[in-house]
Amino acid sequence: MKEQFKQEIKTVIEATQAKGDIESIYLVACGGSHAFLQPAEYVLSKETTIPTTVLPSREFITREPKALGEHSLVVSCSHSGTTPETVAATKYAREQGALTVAFAFADESPLEKEAEYTIHYAWGPETDASDLNTGVLYGWLFAYLNVVNPSDKYDRALKALDVLNDVTTKTREQYTPIIAKWASELKREPIVYSVASGINAGQAYSFAICWLQEMQWVNSAYIHSGEYFHGPFEITDFDVPFIMCEGLGKARAMDERAVDFAKKHSDKVYVIDNKDFDMSLIDEDLQDYYSQIVSGVVYRLIAESFAYERGHSLDVRRYMWKLEY
Amino acid sequence: MKEQFKQEIKTVIEATQAKGDIESIYLVACGGSHAFLQPAEYVLSKETTIPTTVLPSREFITREPKALGEHSLVVSCSHSGTTPETVAATKYAREQGALTVAFAFADESPLEKEAEYTIHYAWGPETDASDLNTGVLYGWLFAYLNVVNPSDKYDRALKALDVLNDVTTKTREQYTPIIAKWASELKREPIVYSVASGINAGQAYSFAICWLQEMQWVNSAYIHSGEYFHGPFEITDFDVPFIMCEGLGKARAMDERAVDFAKKHSDKVYVIDNKDFDMSLIDEDLQDYYSQIVSGVVYRLIAESFAYERGHSLDVRRYMWKLEY
Repeated sequence: MKEQFKQEIKTVIEATQAKGDIESIYLVACGGSHAFLQPAEYVLSKETTIPTTVLPSREFITREPKALGEHSLVVSCSHSGTTPETVAATKYAREQGALTVAFAFADESPLEKEAEYTIHYAWGPETDASDLNTGVLYGWLFAYLNVVNPSDKYDRALKALDVLNDVTTKTREQYTPIIAKWASELKREPIVYSVASGINAGQAYSFAICWLQEMQWVNSAYIHSGEYFHGPFEITDFDVPFIMCEGLGKARAMDERAVDFAKKHSDKVYVIDNKDFDMSLIDEDLQDYYSQIVSGVVYRLIAESFAYERGHSLDVRRYMWKLEY
Repeated sequence: MKEQFKQEIKTVIEATQAKGDIESIYLVACGGSHAFLQPAEYVLSKETTIPTTVLPSREFITREPKALGEHSLVVSCSHSGTTPETVAATKYAREQGALTVAFAFADESPLEKEAEYTIHYAWGPETDASDLNTGVLYGWLFAYLNVVNPSDKYDRALKALDVLNDVTTKTREQYTPIIAKWASELKREPIVYSVASGINAGQAYSFAICWLQEMQWVNSAYIHSGEYFHGPFEITDFDVPFIMCEGLGKARAMDERAVDFAKKHSDKVYVIDNKDFDMSLIDEDLQDYYSQIVSGVVYRLIAESFAYERGHSLDVRRYMWKLEY
């Protein structure tokens, strides 16, 4: 990880320690950045007793959570640093006395002005995985956990960032031909469902709302693997396509059950099985936490191949950045 | 509200007081019951500093939240009291030392056996609204808030249950002809999106996954009004149908913004505007909390009219209760 990002994380951790007891954490963003923060809620709820809530930015502001105050840490994210709702949410949180930390790609953005501290990340195809948004998020997350409850586990989790790029590069190579076939088969589908649970929920959500709805204008919905059996599974039929994620760890059995059912009743079930990832460079007890970053590589590949097969660039928008809204 | 339900709520409140400090609340259920509990999370986050988390039952079990323990209150719900994941989640919570309270329609169910306490509710078309699941939930919710932080507001919120049936009956009459027209217009749509935020989120979610996907086999997705602009809105086109809810209170401006945009770019936007509800019998500062129950009446009407127009009974299933899964 770049020295700048490491230094920014260090400054935030020191500020958090100086702040004293953190009694509540809010993770606040919109769309893809909201999805990006969701795995941090998952990890924090498993590793600490500090209550953590993840909310869309304007839901956070209009909700006015009573627990928000001087003992709160509010982590927000906007890639461009300009998302008005997230800038407003960060301002609002700071006014309530919370420690505000923003993640952003852009420098000197409106978000950076409102947040007490900003942690930047890098972007682009040649970027080392540890410098991308998810890598830097984990760099903060495990450093923070290491001060809440110092542990060898979090040291190892931080060290895993050094090999993350090897893991994601290998996955990209492994999945490129597989995904090309999936995309070719799926290219004329008017709707594709996205199913996952546990730490992969955020990736599956962003696949549905960003990659498919926003960037391909393809109908989609994110379905939680456990919720699938309590309503959504009735939509399953031989010709209804599902892209489903099977995670590692304890959520896996829940994902497998959904995959097994869907495969029996639909001819169009595509499974991102995290057990197929080569994660041998990462310690086994950390593989669940890191798996969603690797799943994200596969979801991105699907989107890219889909865009190619459909001749619909991922950069085309009809409303976003084009109209007042 | 029936004496039995009042007594069950009283017993739960006394047990909660006897338990001492509640440091975390988990609301745990599947599908429609999961949606049903979501407004309680909204209210609790606004009215108390006790951290409240709502999770699908098996996500809760596999997540193993670190804050779950002897100072936790776990509220679960299953209409039939047989939902295996919710029964297991309640058992798991009780093993961790949490106070477990179940909501159920059925008597003497497996859920009732696992939960320390059960609060029942009534069901069926002739049932007074205060005896239905949402009425009894609010009966517990405001009684609980009244012991956490005694207030005239919660007394008034409990008294509002006495007039709830008048409000919902009037709404049903008011909306029946309107919704018949909506359903006739929408009956051949292969996909209908469901948009809301704030306290209406649970109703809009259950409309998408239960009423449409499960009971009508119509494709759908719940979209948060705030998230709409960060991905999903790109799917909007002149022929894409949206059923959107405009709430009361502070979330309203967020909903309005989504409705205004959608109406500009789609010819098929149907709005459940909560300002059109006659809620004059309920104090103004409580109308936001009660609005979702009234929205639920309208969502149910849409489902019933849709079922009629499509000749597809709400009772038909192809998988649920019919197959092993």
